[in-house]
Amino acid sequence: MSTFDMHAWSQAHLRSIEQALQGWVPPQAPAQLGEAMRYAVLDGGKRLRPLLVLASMEACSPQPTAWTLDAAMRAACAIELIHAYSLVHDDMPCMDNDVLRRGKPTVHVQFGEAQALLAGDALQTLAFELLTPEHSNIPAAVQARLCGLLARAAGHAGMAGGQAIDLASVGQRLSADALRQMHRCKTGALLEVSVVMGAVAAQAPDATVQHVLHYGQALGVAFQVVDDILDVTADAAALGKTVGKDAANDKPTYVSLLGLDGARAEASRLADQAQQALGQSGLKNTAALEAVADWVLQRQN
Amino acid sequence: MSTFDMHAWSQAHLRSIEQALQGWVPPQAPAQLGEAMRYAVLDGGKRLRPLLVLASMEACSPQPTAWTLDAAMRAACAIELIHAYSLVHDDMPCMDNDVLRRGKPTVHVQFGEAQALLAGDALQTLAFELLTPEHSNIPAAVQARLCGLLARAAGHAGMAGGQAIDLASVGQRLSADALRQMHRCKTGALLEVSVVMGAVAAQAPDATVQHVLHYGQALGVAFQVVDDILDVTADAAALGKTVGKDAANDKPTYVSLLGLDGARAEASRLADQAQQALGQSGLKNTAALEAVADWVLQRQN
Repeated sequence: MSTFDMHAWSQAHLRSIEQALQGWVPPQAPAQLGEAMRYAVLDGGKRLRPLLVLASMEACSPQPTAWTLDAAMRAACAIELIHAYSLVHDDMPCMDNDVLRRGKPTVHVQFGEAQALLAGDALQTLAFELLTPEHSNIPAAVQARLCGLLARAAGHAGMAGGQAIDLASVGQRLSADALRQMHRCKTGALLEVSVVMGAVAAQAPDATVQHVLHYGQALGVAFQVVDDILDVTADAAALGKTVGKDAANDKPTYVSLLGLDGARAEASRLADQAQQALGQSGLKNTAALEAVADWVLQRQN
Repeated sequence: MSTFDMHAWSQAHLRSIEQALQGWVPPQAPAQLGEAMRYAVLDGGKRLRPLLVLASMEACSPQPTAWTLDAAMRAACAIELIHAYSLVHDDMPCMDNDVLRRGKPTVHVQFGEAQALLAGDALQTLAFELLTPEHSNIPAAVQARLCGLLARAAGHAGMAGGQAIDLASVGQRLSADALRQMHRCKTGALLEVSVVMGAVAAQAPDATVQHVLHYGQALGVAFQVVDDILDVTADAAALGKTVGKDAANDKPTYVSLLGLDGARAEASRLADQAQQALGQSGLKNTAALEAVADWVLQRQN
């Protein structure tokens, strides 16, 4: 086991991600749209998805070319924009009606509902702009594949579909399978596609992409289980958002289904599964991916 | 002047567009999301943007290959999905709060606000899925370019930006230039990109794409001028939506700025400009594009 300094790794990569987002989320968009977009994206968030993209790219391509680095950073930021847009729309009064996010007023509280709706829409579109730069050495085949992967993960069969199931599930008692299916779409699809897009930016062979996908699938479910645990155990200050809101909204969660101890055991089992997938991949440079899985299990917010 | 039967041309193409949309807008999306998406897109709408894509493709490639036909139909439907999503979100209570669209209850009236928000989001994503088919002969370079063009036309510097200007302009007196700038983004960008994407699907040379773009720019503004005229002259039954709503919302329009006669003269001038751009393109097979420009000027709804 080599010594891997996750703190140094993530600090360096977080700086690059913030810098890239600062440059790409447009300040010049008209009539406060740019301000609302930047407010939604910059200066906040764990950047888990971007870090996953970069960790996966590095695992698959220890000596990346300049265009691979560019493609991976664009993929990292594009996924973060999709994540950010989904939070903006999710927080709106007609959805979760949340007023606090990352310790700040939500976008619709700060800029009004109409601007929040537009900013979310424009953040989604911007993700596909980032993946298709006008002058670039990123091969067109990689650009097209990244667009296709992101669209499938974000759309009706992925994140948006999961949100629709979530909407319909309020007040319902779901089976473990149905709950897992909802989260596989709602949260899992975007986490999975993060590692897959990193591997595609690195032009990894299909077999490697499959192993990385299995890691992402286990990690995605683990992330949601931990989210449900934190919703009942964390305090608002640490979490930076309203706590206990799932129970208040009568939403099914892993905790309501499995109990707190059962949910903790499930998270631990899934983290092991993620580590196993990495072991089977044959990839050598997986320390960052392993560390992210540990962090997901142990995070406090 | 050859005899061109616009009615037969548009009927045949409208059938193909409806069939393609029927196949591509997913009935199987979970928890009513699919129903809401299909309600928003199918069985309604003039399909002006898809017809422009196909007319432009045919002008640039009189003998299209199978993949050009496929790329053009995907581009046509992708743009229509972007248009449809913008209408769904635009009609919501926090934006225009409209209850009637194409003679039917709007999506949020029919399915609730949360589902309308999600359906709009998922329609936007689906546009990028359509442009990046998993097994296809469409060259990756064409797929990537179509994604990039659509994202730039739909996003903060295009349609979404125009809507932000529109939001901020309520109760303001705009200059002709500012009004034109707003509509160039809000409506024009998507009409312009329709003809450009048709030309790109046909792999037209850059100079040709430029001429077609000029046609699209003039047509885009003409379309909006006619829209403003119809908002004050048409009746609700012909228009299929609420009339006089711009005046009621105190929004600046070409009619409020130029008067009714002035607006009619402006529409006519722009239609001439569109025809001139076609003349300068050197393209031969432009009858459908010419007919669309005539129709835009003469439409009653």
